[in-house]
Amino acid sequence: MPINYLKRNLLSGDDKKFVASLKNLLGFYPDNLNLYKLAFFHKSVAPEVKAGIKASNERLEFLGDAILDAIVADYLFKKYPFEDEGFLTELRSKIVSRKNLNHLAQKMGLDKFIKSDNRGNMRSNSIMGDALEAMIGAIYLDKGFVKTKNFVLVQLINNHIDVDELQEQELNFKSRLIEWIQKERKTLCFEVVAETDMGARKLFVINAVVNDEVLGTGQDFSKKRAEQSAAEKALEKIEQTNNG
Amino acid sequence: MPINYLKRNLLSGDDKKFVASLKNLLGFYPDNLNLYKLAFFHKSVAPEVKAGIKASNERLEFLGDAILDAIVADYLFKKYPFEDEGFLTELRSKIVSRKNLNHLAQKMGLDKFIKSDNRGNMRSNSIMGDALEAMIGAIYLDKGFVKTKNFVLVQLINNHIDVDELQEQELNFKSRLIEWIQKERKTLCFEVVAETDMGARKLFVINAVVNDEVLGTGQDFSKKRAEQSAAEKALEKIEQTNNG
Repeated sequence: MPINYLKRNLLSGDDKKFVASLKNLLGFYPDNLNLYKLAFFHKSVAPEVKAGIKASNERLEFLGDAILDAIVADYLFKKYPFEDEGFLTELRSKIVSRKNLNHLAQKMGLDKFIKSDNRGNMRSNSIMGDALEAMIGAIYLDKGFVKTKNFVLVQLINNHIDVDELQEQELNFKSRLIEWIQKERKTLCFEVVAETDMGARKLFVINAVVNDEVLGTGQDFSKKRAEQSAAEKALEKIEQTNNG
Repeated sequence: MPINYLKRNLLSGDDKKFVASLKNLLGFYPDNLNLYKLAFFHKSVAPEVKAGIKASNERLEFLGDAILDAIVADYLFKKYPFEDEGFLTELRSKIVSRKNLNHLAQKMGLDKFIKSDNRGNMRSNSIMGDALEAMIGAIYLDKGFVKTKNFVLVQLINNHIDVDELQEQELNFKSRLIEWIQKERKTLCFEVVAETDMGARKLFVINAVVNDEVLGTGQDFSKKRAEQSAAEKALEKIEQTNNG
């Protein structure tokens, strides 16, 4: 049911403020307000709707995650007509990574909307990114695929993400780690911990081992990308240790 | 560019036949015929379009995979309003599993369309399921999200998939394995091989060990589902051994 100008005037004061902030954030007026309220309800404060079932944003997050993946796949498919599916998969993981989504949600100021009993800690875990995905699920149910796609392309990707820069980052973790290893005169090896058949493909779990110590683990259907991911985590750990 | 009745009459004989078969398969006339041709081109026979780049269906498969995931997420979200996101994730994996997609593609007769130099072996690997995903990517580019969603809901899910039965199957691998173990007086344990932090979530890799022999490995963000997946693979192996 669309909320037109007349109906918006009949809302309670709190709802009026919520609608106005959403309009600022989304660029359009929401129709079904309850969907957006649900999107910002972290499970820590969600009310029970049925024995054992809480009205938290987790179901919307499941839906929004899938819708976001599809929209980003479409975007990359068209942006890179001559790159193969390995490249597209890798770049998409980077765009929709929890780290990137948390960062995006913070830039957009979603923390002002989120209801959680863990507010102090919101930035250090994934509450923000989860809420962003849930909000995308809410937009999809409220407005359909095309409007959600426009929102993601304009408000998220164009305004907040430098896709070409992300692509560069993605490819460089392993070489950045090797550079550091050489400078510090340490040893590095990548060790395959598990190879698991999943239908036609294999999932690789790979450790980045520096001076006999596991500094990062990555997994992917491609060995190369699992190594990249292990190297990324090792670099994060090294950075933390140097700062700590 | 839509192919209307007039234009269809100007097509070559082969293309006319292709359009007619597609109409039968999809329930609508295709507009951009080249997209569907590409969807059925396995990489083994794909022509090179640029140095090192082949015009195979792999990019379309990447896109179709994401679109299919989103449509199935939407479908399950609405079909099961009181189930949590773990349940939805699990059931979706089952619906879009390579095994299930291969089976679906076979039922739909996609083998008649696929161009591959490996035709004899088509059913034993994932060429069929990959082509089905690529075809979904082609429909999406040709007709948009809503028409693709209708195709998936009506032609795939309603006509070919018993979702309630799949749900039952999913939940029963572990208990089926335990039954077999008791009957055969063997021992069973589930052993966690790796726990990997991926942002806020942990990925579990778990072995199903029967009489000290690893019969299956599964991984998932939930321990329970990783065990289910390990149990599923162990049951497949037991079945193969009994038949072989």
